[in-house]
Amino acid sequence: MEEYITKAKTLIESLPYIQRFAGKTVVIKYGGSAMIDDDLKLSVIKDIVLMKLVGLKPIIVHGGGKEISYWMSKLNKQSQFIDGFRVTDEETMEIAEMILSGKVNKSLVQLMFQQGMKAVGISGKDGATIKVNKKYINGKDIGFVGDIKTVNTELLNVLLESDFIPIVAPIGLDDNGDSYNINADDAAGAIASAMNAEKLVFLTDVEGVLLDPYDQRSLISEISVDKAEELIQDGVIAGGMIPKIKCCINSVKNNVTQVHILDGRVDHSLLLEIFTEKGIGTMMVK
Amino acid sequence: MEEYITKAKTLIESLPYIQRFAGKTVVIKYGGSAMIDDDLKLSVIKDIVLMKLVGLKPIIVHGGGKEISYWMSKLNKQSQFIDGFRVTDEETMEIAEMILSGKVNKSLVQLMFQQGMKAVGISGKDGATIKVNKKYINGKDIGFVGDIKTVNTELLNVLLESDFIPIVAPIGLDDNGDSYNINADDAAGAIASAMNAEKLVFLTDVEGVLLDPYDQRSLISEISVDKAEELIQDGVIAGGMIPKIKCCINSVKNNVTQVHILDGRVDHSLLLEIFTEKGIGTMMVK
Amino acid sequence: MEEYITKAKTLIESLPYIQRFAGKTVVIKYGGSAMIDDDLKLSVIKDIVLMKLVGLKPIIVHGGGKEISYWMSKLNKQSQFIDGFRVTDEETMEIAEMILSGKVNKSLVQLMFQQGMKAVGISGKDGATIKVNKKYINGKDIGFVGDIKTVNTELLNVLLESDFIPIVAPIGLDDNGDSYNINADDAAGAIASAMNAEKLVFLTDVEGVLLDPYDQRSLISEISVDKAEELIQDGVIAGGMIPKIKCCINSVKNNVTQVHILDGRVDHSLLLEIFTEKGIGTMMVK
Amino acid sequence: MEEYITKAKTLIESLPYIQRFAGKTVVIKYGGSAMIDDDLKLSVIKDIVLMKLVGLKPIIVHGGGKEISYWMSKLNKQSQFIDGFRVTDEETMEIAEMILSGKVNKSLVQLMFQQGMKAVGISGKDGATIKVNKKYINGKDIGFVGDIKTVNTELLNVLLESDFIPIVAPIGLDDNGDSYNINADDAAGAIASAMNAEKLVFLTDVEGVLLDPYDQRSLISEISVDKAEELIQDGVIAGGMIPKIKCCINSVKNNVTQVHILDGRVDHSLLLEIFTEKGIGTMMVK
Amino acid sequence: MEEYITKAKTLIESLPYIQRFAGKTVVIKYGGSAMIDDDLKLSVIKDIVLMKLVGLKPIIVHGGGKEISYWMSKLNKQSQFIDGFRVTDEETMEIAEMILSGKVNKSLVQLMFQQGMKAVGISGKDGATIKVNKKYINGKDIGFVGDIKTVNTELLNVLLESDFIPIVAPIGLDDNGDSYNINADDAAGAIASAMNAEKLVFLTDVEGVLLDPYDQRSLISEISVDKAEELIQDGVIAGGMIPKIKCCINSVKNNVTQVHILDGRVDHSLLLEIFTEKGIGTMMVK
Amino acid sequence: MEEYITKAKTLIESLPYIQRFAGKTVVIKYGGSAMIDDDLKLSVIKDIVLMKLVGLKPIIVHGGGKEISYWMSKLNKQSQFIDGFRVTDEETMEIAEMILSGKVNKSLVQLMFQQGMKAVGISGKDGATIKVNKKYINGKDIGFVGDIKTVNTELLNVLLESDFIPIVAPIGLDDNGDSYNINADDAAGAIASAMNAEKLVFLTDVEGVLLDPYDQRSLISEISVDKAEELIQDGVIAGGMIPKIKCCINSVKNNVTQVHILDGRVDHSLLLEIFTEKGIGTMMVK
Repeated sequence: MEEYITKAKTLIESLPYIQRFAGKTVVIKYGGSAMIDDDLKLSVIKDIVLMKLVGLKPIIVHGGGKEISYWMSKLNKQSQFIDGFRVTDEETMEIAEMILSGKVNKSLVQLMFQQGMKAVGISGKDGATIKVNKKYINGKDIGFVGDIKTVNTELLNVLLESDFIPIVAPIGLDDNGDSYNINADDAAGAIASAMNAEKLVFLTDVEGVLLDPYDQRSLISEISVDKAEELIQDGVIAGGMIPKIKCCINSVKNNVTQVHILDGRVDHSLLLEIFTEKGIGTMMVK
Repeated sequence: MEEYITKAKTLIESLPYIQRFAGKTVVIKYGGSAMIDDDLKLSVIKDIVLMKLVGLKPIIVHGGGKEISYWMSKLNKQSQFIDGFRVTDEETMEIAEMILSGKVNKSLVQLMFQQGMKAVGISGKDGATIKVNKKYINGKDIGFVGDIKTVNTELLNVLLESDFIPIVAPIGLDDNGDSYNINADDAAGAIASAMNAEKLVFLTDVEGVLLDPYDQRSLISEISVDKAEELIQDGVIAGGMIPKIKCCINSVKNNVTQVHILDGRVDHSLLLEIFTEKGIGTMMVK
Repeated sequence: MEEYITKAKTLIESLPYIQRFAGKTVVIKYGGSAMIDDDLKLSVIKDIVLMKLVGLKPIIVHGGGKEISYWMSKLNKQSQFIDGFRVTDEETMEIAEMILSGKVNKSLVQLMFQQGMKAVGISGKDGATIKVNKKYINGKDIGFVGDIKTVNTELLNVLLESDFIPIVAPIGLDDNGDSYNINADDAAGAIASAMNAEKLVFLTDVEGVLLDPYDQRSLISEISVDKAEELIQDGVIAGGMIPKIKCCINSVKNNVTQVHILDGRVDHSLLLEIFTEKGIGTMMVK
Repeated sequence: MEEYITKAKTLIESLPYIQRFAGKTVVIKYGGSAMIDDDLKLSVIKDIVLMKLVGLKPIIVHGGGKEISYWMSKLNKQSQFIDGFRVTDEETMEIAEMILSGKVNKSLVQLMFQQGMKAVGISGKDGATIKVNKKYINGKDIGFVGDIKTVNTELLNVLLESDFIPIVAPIGLDDNGDSYNINADDAAGAIASAMNAEKLVFLTDVEGVLLDPYDQRSLISEISVDKAEELIQDGVIAGGMIPKIKCCINSVKNNVTQVHILDGRVDHSLLLEIFTEKGIGTMMVK
Repeated sequence: MEEYITKAKTLIESLPYIQRFAGKTVVIKYGGSAMIDDDLKLSVIKDIVLMKLVGLKPIIVHGGGKEISYWMSKLNKQSQFIDGFRVTDEETMEIAEMILSGKVNKSLVQLMFQQGMKAVGISGKDGATIKVNKKYINGKDIGFVGDIKTVNTELLNVLLESDFIPIVAPIGLDDNGDSYNINADDAAGAIASAMNAEKLVFLTDVEGVLLDPYDQRSLISEISVDKAEELIQDGVIAGGMIPKIKCCINSVKNNVTQVHILDGRVDHSLLLEIFTEKGIGTMMVK
Repeated sequence: MEEYITKAKTLIESLPYIQRFAGKTVVIKYGGSAMIDDDLKLSVIKDIVLMKLVGLKPIIVHGGGKEISYWMSKLNKQSQFIDGFRVTDEETMEIAEMILSGKVNKSLVQLMFQQGMKAVGISGKDGATIKVNKKYINGKDIGFVGDIKTVNTELLNVLLESDFIPIVAPIGLDDNGDSYNINADDAAGAIASAMNAEKLVFLTDVEGVLLDPYDQRSLISEISVDKAEELIQDGVIAGGMIPKIKCCINSVKNNVTQVHILDGRVDHSLLLEIFTEKGIGTMMVK
């Protein structure tokens, strides 16, 4: 009985968090280990199911770089990257789309179904949700890689209103109707801004923003936009963290209340962040 | 961190229960110790708030016999009972209504407000929700004590649709528009039936139905209508338990899926029953 | 037949008034003799039923000072007043709430029911309709007496849309969720302003505003806010009339089109004011 | 003041009638003297305005035989009748439609406007409201005279829901889309049946059904369908009264609760019938 | 088969036009030969049916001058004109209304019905749609001829939303509720402006605006408001064309996107203008 | 001009067809040459766009067998068939889903976008639209090949109501949430039945049902269910045509009004069938 009383108390402790976020939209950028390890995967899915059931409106945006590379090599096709972006010729785009929209996306729909949830997997092409321009890296053409121009929220809103969980593959269309690969972080950020999301959460393979990358105790729990820009300037935030932080800054500046960088390698990190007083990872606010 | 992982697991364990009861109406007969002890009171209120937040539709029906007796004596008015029913002359009715509708009812609205919830306290007179006939005990007139004739669900539905928690005092009107006191168990049962409630829960001061009243280990966890009728016949269920069990039987026969007799003296008993695998008390089903 | 023709003409004469007020909200402060004398009571109720039936949206706000004093003395509790406000300790508040919400309020619901109307009795605590701050009289704490801070119209609107007549007891909550007694005139005025009422009507025991209190022929039929402020300044309006007039001024300044002070001792005064060319009492406009 | 109290009492006396008919559809066949005398006309219009304002849903169906005859003769065209039906060649139909839809109908819209009401004048052709078959009198073709086949209530419902008063000219279309004249009594009856009207009222130039046509005191106040059929059988109801009574019988048998034959020559007869205890004329019920 | 392929291609070619105008309101001033010649009439009606079916919202406004003159002479009544306006005494107004509302208007409803469409014929009096002031020509009173003051779009919107095609006779009411004749071009223009129409189309008996009235090849296909005002100034646009062009200018200045003057003598001119690349007649834009 | 008149006439000729099918659901099984040849592809897409614009509600169900085989061989994976069904091990299912949901499906969304239409590509997994059981061929397990158990129309209805064109890949889920390949004809038939479609159209590479497969003139234009069953019995319908015809029979027996087998190799065959009197291919009705 003791044990159950403790359980009851835990449920009761989550009350203020549930109350605070009821009816709010939360965009989750799903990627990294949490998308590969089967136990972590299930843990993330269950966290999202709980969010949905207690009244939040989750939208999932996923990547799939590793899966693409795996199938590229299976098809004897070389992967080439410039500044972290995959050079995307027509055949690469074809393969990327099959993996993202046909494999990763639908397997998440399937996991949701197995947890009793109605999900709908779309890409940015469906309902013309994501429109892009071609991206140039220092003036160089790297193929079908897109910069997001606009997000049309019509389809996402229709799905949310009918109580479906939207799962979005990061692919968009340009004005001619050609398909483009999009960075998943950017897609999540742009969707969160267009939906005026309460929260945008990045599930990553790091603890958050560290002042000293070799010392986990140097984790910054909360950071302002100004401070983040300063840390980039000063070189404290560096390397692969820079584009992610810039994406966070951009979202906070465009209608998103809170942006989180969470460690997706921790079980139920999503749930802990949202429903307990245990703030984990790094949160950016205005 | 360990501790938080445990908390996360507890929340996740409640998922199937939340899913199962989402959108369902639950009528709670609130009475006994849980309405007197301040800690228990808060525990019940918080359980109901959680129910509301995760998508259930709670309706609270309360009694208030002890409070009525207390004020009766303060006003030097003798309380008289026949077969457990308070003999209710005009002045007693006046006092009972003031206590039930003006004190007990509104103090529950207030507790809900303090937990961040919008509640609305009504009696069966409001919106002509409860219509009654005069009750006779073995042909004897005991004053303004009513037998429920009909429940008009219009006001309750309007309040539920606008996301208010209805709190109902057990008072009704006869065809002439005279006020009548109603047994709170009966009121809860009739409302649960009229609302096609998923659950009707009685918060009481007993562990549930015991085969041997002197042995708590003889608790019956689940009982069918037939079995219950048999136990009354055989005298196993006796005394004050009889009318409550008859009320349960009546509700199960009239559109209510599950009826529970819970021990309101246990912290968060409501929550434990609904959101954990720990079935407590006695459950009656068809 | 002659007689019926006359009746028909009377009905026809009310046409322009019905047309003018159709769909408009009218707040009635119900008090004084009209709440004590049984015939007057019935006359008021019937007037309100007619208003409702021909398309107006009446909201009733009632007081109950005399009833409170009567029960206070029955309970051997001294009533104490400072500047016309009842000093309200915790026990007095308890009694006042029982009388207002449990007795006066529900008895009006009952009278409406007897005239075939669906009324719902609430207090300012229900749906957190009235929020207050503690009132201080010249810096003196007089207990649980509240100054209205905000009126949340959500519950009132839900009830009006579902065709119920709301009846409101003048009790509110502060931020801690403590209960407070409110002056009924102030409650009526604040509700009328928040609802953008077309009319606010005070049923009183005077003929209206008199230039010479000893001469009924000195009744002012219509008065502007400016003129009213001038008459207070000049001492023509004095004594107990001052707070009522100030309440009228406040309402007219805050979204209420017309405010009336009517003589509730006259049969059907409400109906006469609204549906005939016989303007009675004093009307204040901008 | 005395006078006003009397007025107030009259208004109050209408309460039960207003309550009973609120939201109900009433079809009024408007014809006879009440459509010619200017004072009676205004009296009828005002009665209908009152009905509308207190929540009934009036639909007016008018005839116009005398106006048609007047313009026929002005155009030197002979009017010919067989069994009371106007023989209607193409030119007669053209004239009849101009008078009914273009003159009588729109002049009623105009009178309503002058009383502050939004009316919409249609004929049975608009929205394909009335479909007819050609009528044969004892096998004889009398031109464009129609028997009603179906009433499509779509347009009428749209107008009622948007709070317009529909005014209907008795003209319909056959399957080829040819226009036909319809007996206005029949049109009113068919519309009342299709709309499940509470009341169908014929404004006529007689007192009602008389047992002895030479003795007004022999008026039958209420009659059943069976009794009416018997009186026709026995020859008590005879001549021009027969088709009207048959139309009443038909309506009562098809969803109309009460049918009235009123004396339109009496001022406000409509109002007296509906809003006072003075039942006038003859009422037929099932 | 060849033939059908060609047909298919034609349908496909209309795609971009259908897409562009879907859901848009188009007001058609129907008059001239297209209202007299039976083949042209049917061609216009079918064009409007097609417009409706592919998702446009047509509103038809018709004149009827020739029909009025014909019946005036049949009734031995002289027609008199000042500056192109019919001098309209009471009897003339009576006749005009019968012809417009009772004959022309309802015959269009009938044609629509024969093509399977639900139309509703109203005049500006119905629903108080068109309010007017008396018109004076150089200070001279010419009787019941009105200048449009306001257009109330409520009834038109109700009809469009319920999928009816509104057909409007150009008659309005002044503040006293008197009926007035209105120039049909003005009525069409005012309705198009009030409805924020995408297009206003005048079906006329000319090719459009010609630079040289004796040379059809001098047709101006597209003209701006400025250019049109200049051509009036320079006397190029002259005579009867001036009021029509002024009406076009007025509409373009008041919320109408495009105004067309089409040659109603050409079969399917309406359809050709809207659904093919063949722009015909003259189009005015801002 | 002549040419345009002809065009106008063609548009007008389509009127009765547009009227007949407005608002009706049409399911199109898209496959064969029409999905490979780029010109035919565009012709089909444009036909569907036209259907949508004139008010029909098209749903597209596509196959993709050839594309799957092509990628299978690229990945050095053997395709194996039993009785026409692809033996589908886990890896084959993975590849099939990527091609169907990630390539074929999204490329159709893209083509629709290029024609100005909002399409949404889903598979039967999204919104749990298609639930299946494992299929056994003569008791033999052929892997992840499914028999349709139920179609949940919720997501399809949500998309249609929001004016999106749903494009469906034939993949479903069993109760465990495993993915299954489904025959596209069966998927189209089951969806058409569940949606109560007016028409189900199979775009194939044959002219229709031929009495003599070597003689195109032996085409059966219209066939009843009974006749079709007889022809199968008699061996006239044989080979690969049998399952398709059985699928047609099944659909007609389950709520679909008309089923068509069209020759997708003919330009605009869809449009010709629906919008002209040129019935092509074979139509099955009850």
